[in-house]
Amino acid sequence: MKQQTADTWKSFLELLRKIKSYHEAVALMHWDLRTGAPRKGAEVRSETIGVLSTEAFKLQTSREMGEYLSYLHHDTVLGELDETGRRLVKLVKEEYDRNVKIPPDKFKEYAELTAHAETLWEDFKENGDFAGFEPYLTRIVALTQEFIDYWGPKETRYDTLLDMYEPDLTVKKLDQVFGELRDRLVPLVDKITAAPHKPQAPFLNQLYDKAQQEKYGKFLLEQIGYDFEAGRLDESVHPFEITLNQGDVRITTNYLQDDVTSSIFSVLHEGGHALYEQNIGKELNGTPLSEGTSMGIHESQSRFWENFVGRSRAFWERYYGDLQQHFPDHLKDVTLDDFYRAVNRVENSLIRIEADELTYNLHIIIRYEIEKMIFNENLPISELPKVWNEKYKTYLGLTPPNDGLGVLQDVHWSGGSFGYFPSYALGNMYAAQIAHTLKKELPQFEGFVKEGNFKPIKEWLTDKIYKHGKALKPAEIIKSVTGEDLNPDYLADYLEEKYKEIYGH
Amino acid sequence: MKQQTADTWKSFLELLRKIKSYHEAVALMHWDLRTGAPRKGAEVRSETIGVLSTEAFKLQTSREMGEYLSYLHHDTVLGELDETGRRLVKLVKEEYDRNVKIPPDKFKEYAELTAHAETLWEDFKENGDFAGFEPYLTRIVALTQEFIDYWGPKETRYDTLLDMYEPDLTVKKLDQVFGELRDRLVPLVDKITAAPHKPQAPFLNQLYDKAQQEKYGKFLLEQIGYDFEAGRLDESVHPFEITLNQGDVRITTNYLQDDVTSSIFSVLHEGGHALYEQNIGKELNGTPLSEGTSMGIHESQSRFWENFVGRSRAFWERYYGDLQQHFPDHLKDVTLDDFYRAVNRVENSLIRIEADELTYNLHIIIRYEIEKMIFNENLPISELPKVWNEKYKTYLGLTPPNDGLGVLQDVHWSGGSFGYFPSYALGNMYAAQIAHTLKKELPQFEGFVKEGNFKPIKEWLTDKIYKHGKALKPAEIIKSVTGEDLNPDYLADYLEEKYKEIYGH
Repeated sequence: MKQQTADTWKSFLELLRKIKSYHEAVALMHWDLRTGAPRKGAEVRSETIGVLSTEAFKLQTSREMGEYLSYLHHDTVLGELDETGRRLVKLVKEEYDRNVKIPPDKFKEYAELTAHAETLWEDFKENGDFAGFEPYLTRIVALTQEFIDYWGPKETRYDTLLDMYEPDLTVKKLDQVFGELRDRLVPLVDKITAAPHKPQAPFLNQLYDKAQQEKYGKFLLEQIGYDFEAGRLDESVHPFEITLNQGDVRITTNYLQDDVTSSIFSVLHEGGHALYEQNIGKELNGTPLSEGTSMGIHESQSRFWENFVGRSRAFWERYYGDLQQHFPDHLKDVTLDDFYRAVNRVENSLIRIEADELTYNLHIIIRYEIEKMIFNENLPISELPKVWNEKYKTYLGLTPPNDGLGVLQDVHWSGGSFGYFPSYALGNMYAAQIAHTLKKELPQFEGFVKEGNFKPIKEWLTDKIYKHGKALKPAEIIKSVTGEDLNPDYLADYLEEKYKEIYGH
Repeated sequence: MKQQTADTWKSFLELLRKIKSYHEAVALMHWDLRTGAPRKGAEVRSETIGVLSTEAFKLQTSREMGEYLSYLHHDTVLGELDETGRRLVKLVKEEYDRNVKIPPDKFKEYAELTAHAETLWEDFKENGDFAGFEPYLTRIVALTQEFIDYWGPKETRYDTLLDMYEPDLTVKKLDQVFGELRDRLVPLVDKITAAPHKPQAPFLNQLYDKAQQEKYGKFLLEQIGYDFEAGRLDESVHPFEITLNQGDVRITTNYLQDDVTSSIFSVLHEGGHALYEQNIGKELNGTPLSEGTSMGIHESQSRFWENFVGRSRAFWERYYGDLQQHFPDHLKDVTLDDFYRAVNRVENSLIRIEADELTYNLHIIIRYEIEKMIFNENLPISELPKVWNEKYKTYLGLTPPNDGLGVLQDVHWSGGSFGYFPSYALGNMYAAQIAHTLKKELPQFEGFVKEGNFKPIKEWLTDKIYKHGKALKPAEIIKSVTGEDLNPDYLADYLEEKYKEIYGH
């Protein structure tokens, strides 16, 4: 490596490390706001998040960064770096090119507005107050539309947003895969709705002690290999995973008094996200490569652990006895088979995060269609509740009794995360496709799960996915792991087979 | 106000607000490290704290700051500001003049080193491993000595450090007041040691449930007026108060299984710090004036609530019944008088934070003498354990069995806080002097405490001390509140009277 390259490389890495420091602080401030920060400090906190996010943004788009990149991003210089180094330069260049188009004042307004709106959203949702939320959402959408203009619209305006969460994914591709998925899932839902013997969950609607739920959740996390020395489990209104640094990958859950299964599956879900983050290659630490490669692949891992492991019969053959021991009074008369069927019952419902594995995808398709309307057809924000309710009627046959259980139910839009929702359904599709390959390459998969021996599974996923971080793009991961591009048939096949067995149609 | 003044003033306030944002983030990261951050993330976290502290430092010493100050800090311009504005400019100018002398690289090394050493210190202390700690402490002292050279030594080198925590306090003054105090306390301790009827605490050494301790601690905090919507109570190895912003003033405590009184008094102590911070005038928000004026005055408030309120007979006349209800099995045979005497028993001991109201001051005098030796006489760090143990023998008649219970017991030096310890004894003296005035001006003081009616007391303190933040200097506060300068006699009088009653000599 030439001296100039070595010097520039060192300064470049130091600048990236500095940017990471800001991100760690901002992440901690978000975590804290959602796990018990006092109410009266929240407004100043939102401003503080805005200030430090903006400083990070300024570093990302600084003159120094521009100079480093214009030196490093040259074929001759890239040739002096190793493959990971080249990937890093390219990734940072892409982010730089995107961010440098946004004026810092706009970014600051956006960062403060969304931090503030996220905090207010909880109350608006609680009170079903869409009118209160509307001006915030209107401004967030308007700013996002401005950003799309700065970035330059792709095939459609919404494509520009999609690309941020799932590089190279397009509306065209999503229309196709969501169309195929919908065409196979809607008849399946119809069959299930008509099935004579539906699973019941009579063991719910009892009081499940929170401390016991927490104990069992921690036990499951330890079982799947979550490292509590590099993370912690807390409580929040909505469960989430957040990475502060690679030795500090935190998750939260929410304990429902009357439904022990809610925290179990959210712990496995967030635990799946955390396993990904805890097992990224150490050599990527301190750089933007040290993250999951995309929201879709991330979600595939949370879904894999939640559904393909956690909602499997094999898993409960191993862990149902432990659960009964934690709640002997509640579960003594419930058989393993009843429990397994109950946690896999399918019901059309209003709330995405409580939806079953099957109808969940319809909740996502609804949001995808609405986001396209907002950004590609200028749907007025005031009409969102109406459009939302119509689509729920069409796809799920239900109408929310108020906006808190309807259009206000998700935090994402208050944080400006438009284009994020499709990741969830993508995650399901990726998970099914990856699980298909995994079962071929590890034919003892079911046996491992029955033994609670997750090490070989975690190692396989680490080797194929986790360790690469962002050094491989999502499409590369899927292609290299499964040998083909994204294919929605794996998810549809899996769901058809699973529910045929449970609903006996 | 001239346009140029108005513009500069606005930019100046914005810059101060930005610096506060960094301080909020750094404070949250410290809080988090001490309340449960995972072990494996601590090293990166220390780096991150170093990076962001250094950025704040750079803003404090930036060219912009220099320009604003050189415009604002002129008699004609100061005349355009109100009194608070003038105080603010002067305070920021003082800090600027001090900080601008330190090269940012030195500051960064110091910030990272101390964040790291604070984290490591817990283990060194646990293992009584002074040899492990010595290289860190040596480097911290060396850097501090360099800083003294940059700042310029005052009458002695140690004066330069003292001045940071207690503006205008000198070694000369401290030698005098500590001398007077020692001359009155040592005979008092001797009398007490010889007293025939010593208070006993047979109710200790039982198991006190942590959840019950926490419940009672929260109850007391609410009673004295701590605002839980602007703060929270957590657990940490060492209790502390930390302000993130004025709506977020947090405290921690430590629950001893076998001593319920430990968490009670630490909660009142940290609660006293928090009452101060929660009641600073809102108009000072977002500026460096929105803090307690000095460590000594701050400590006077924690001591006031812990000792002058919390260890008074009147307090327990009101609250002992509640405590018995929280722990009926433990306390059913313990009378109010026994309990009151027990929480006021005097014993020579090895550990500062467990010391009683009286001998506590001797622990401080020991540290003060050692710090003077380090900075004014170049005492080699390797000799600290020896000197420490000799002084404990002289002043308290005890020798620590290991350095964990000796020279390693306090976190302060690992964080570079040299010159801080005297604040504790100052706090006791200030508290006694302020309490003396308070009782004259609020003659119903004892009656209020007996009723648990702390509002008038809190309002008096808010009006005289809290609301002013840093807009008044400590010497101004003491003079304006009590009509005279610091006078150690009030503390000595108070202690003599109190212990005469308890020990009956």
